[in-house]
Amino acid sequence: MPELRQDPLSGRWVIVAENRAARPDQFAARSETVVDVCPFCPGHEDLTPKASAVYSGDSSIDWQVRVVPNKYPAVELNASGDRGEAAIGVHEVIIESPAHVASLTEVSATEAQLTFVAYRDRLQTLSKDKRLAYGLVFKNARADGGASLEHTHSQLIATSTIPADVQYELAKAGEHQMLHGNCAFCDLIDGELDGDRHVFETDSFAVFCPFSSRFPYEMWVLPKEHCESFETTTDSKLAELAELMQKLIRGLEDILDAPAYNYWIRNAPFRLSAHDDFHWRIELTPRMTRLAGFELGAGCFINPVGPEHAAAELRSAIARVV
Amino acid sequence: MPELRQDPLSGRWVIVAENRAARPDQFAARSETVVDVCPFCPGHEDLTPKASAVYSGDSSIDWQVRVVPNKYPAVELNASGDRGEAAIGVHEVIIESPAHVASLTEVSATEAQLTFVAYRDRLQTLSKDKRLAYGLVFKNARADGGASLEHTHSQLIATSTIPADVQYELAKAGEHQMLHGNCAFCDLIDGELDGDRHVFETDSFAVFCPFSSRFPYEMWVLPKEHCESFETTTDSKLAELAELMQKLIRGLEDILDAPAYNYWIRNAPFRLSAHDDFHWRIELTPRMTRLAGFELGAGCFINPVGPEHAAAELRSAIARVV
Repeated sequence: MPELRQDPLSGRWVIVAENRAARPDQFAARSETVVDVCPFCPGHEDLTPKASAVYSGDSSIDWQVRVVPNKYPAVELNASGDRGEAAIGVHEVIIESPAHVASLTEVSATEAQLTFVAYRDRLQTLSKDKRLAYGLVFKNARADGGASLEHTHSQLIATSTIPADVQYELAKAGEHQMLHGNCAFCDLIDGELDGDRHVFETDSFAVFCPFSSRFPYEMWVLPKEHCESFETTTDSKLAELAELMQKLIRGLEDILDAPAYNYWIRNAPFRLSAHDDFHWRIELTPRMTRLAGFELGAGCFINPVGPEHAAAELRSAIARVV
Repeated sequence: MPELRQDPLSGRWVIVAENRAARPDQFAARSETVVDVCPFCPGHEDLTPKASAVYSGDSSIDWQVRVVPNKYPAVELNASGDRGEAAIGVHEVIIESPAHVASLTEVSATEAQLTFVAYRDRLQTLSKDKRLAYGLVFKNARADGGASLEHTHSQLIATSTIPADVQYELAKAGEHQMLHGNCAFCDLIDGELDGDRHVFETDSFAVFCPFSSRFPYEMWVLPKEHCESFETTTDSKLAELAELMQKLIRGLEDILDAPAYNYWIRNAPFRLSAHDDFHWRIELTPRMTRLAGFELGAGCFINPVGPEHAAAELRSAIARVV
């Protein structure tokens, strides 16, 4: 049973999930489980737990996007703590296409769009469960991005607690609101839209490399109009977002050779109180640098590519691939 | 010039050090610099900056351990901030042996001992520089551990600011002292010495897997006797510690095949104020899991091997290799 444990001196949280040691890993030499059939490919649906949701934009295809419970969950609704707290939650996998490809850029526009619809729908559904307080959607692409299976997929981990980082940010956003009378993120977008860290924009979304980028080519994607929770996003905006994300990742893949990457949605908690303020965003980053002794020992990142230079390169790359 | 940048909402610190993009990387396919001679091997001393210190236990050998300024520093004493703060500091490399080997377990007992003497001496020297507030010694071994050169080496980054994580821990240790009248770490050792997370002990040091281990087989090494700063450690205790560290890493190398690993010294700041309390430790961990979307998005780790099981495996492994 997975457990939540907190270090009393650092405040750091860890999920101890021993069942995950058994999961197959196509990339790791250390894996004890050989994967010769892809459990995410059509025809192998029996290798995953029963789907929580399926999506298809074409009535002749069973599914284009398929959401299934994670077979090796980091959290469980019926978890019970042994030495730590019970790690209560839901862990799902969003399979982004029937095609066995490694990146969101290789799925069709419809599949990308349905993937983002699935993110929203699952967050909406899980947000109604009173046992759950937060839902994190994230994607690990390629081995250095932390993927253990190649077939393009995302994950959703919903937990009964709000991550400490999100709580901290909520408090800081609240302070900004009190001091300036504005949303901290709306102000951030205003400051970045014309600056040298600006990367791209669409009707509804702004993209820039943040001032304190942890990673080379890290990008943040925010809705220009104030919006607290990702799960309130309309179908048409999700289509715009899916197209934008494919474009940004194509830009990364133009600069770097088949880069490992991650993205995750920094969303509001499921039930914001009346005085809370938030503004969701996606953080997208290729994984070129390794988090090593300095990062772990000091809790500080070293980024060898300044965000101003990264943004300039990304603007050119995106112009080339569009 | 390297800069320190802080994200206003997360409080997260980043060093933007663009000069580091130019450094050679023997492991990364993306490296633009081909390394055909090892700059850390004897005879190639001219490929590194002039040594800050050299050590030899044998008068017929020029050096067994060699400390040099990092050619691609993440911090510099003469840094000036452009958009962020200046990232002021000193970045050194400790070459642990003339032999071109990849792990601390492959150097001689004398070389290991002199490596730990070098850590202490350099921290002692740098602690006298009023511009510097903290010194972090860390080791990245093998590619997944973040090493860019194979030849076994450690690093020391001294900074003009105390890392936020260390400040937080200092405050928590102070609270514990106020509430319980004891050092938080002395109490921690007492609680772990007889428990099922206990791994090993010597006359002066205790080793256990911490309750909220972030990584499989993570170990903490602490002096049993209360001791605030690593740089006050005597030669004889450093010899005991070096032998212990080689033993622990041999244990890891018995369980795992040539594992990438990191260790770092969580030390007190250079100048503790009268009411501060600390107790240094080494954190040692192999790098089997990847920090990916969930860890980055939630600030929470997922550990598939519980520390109680890890400690049992480590006890057996260390008994085998001793």
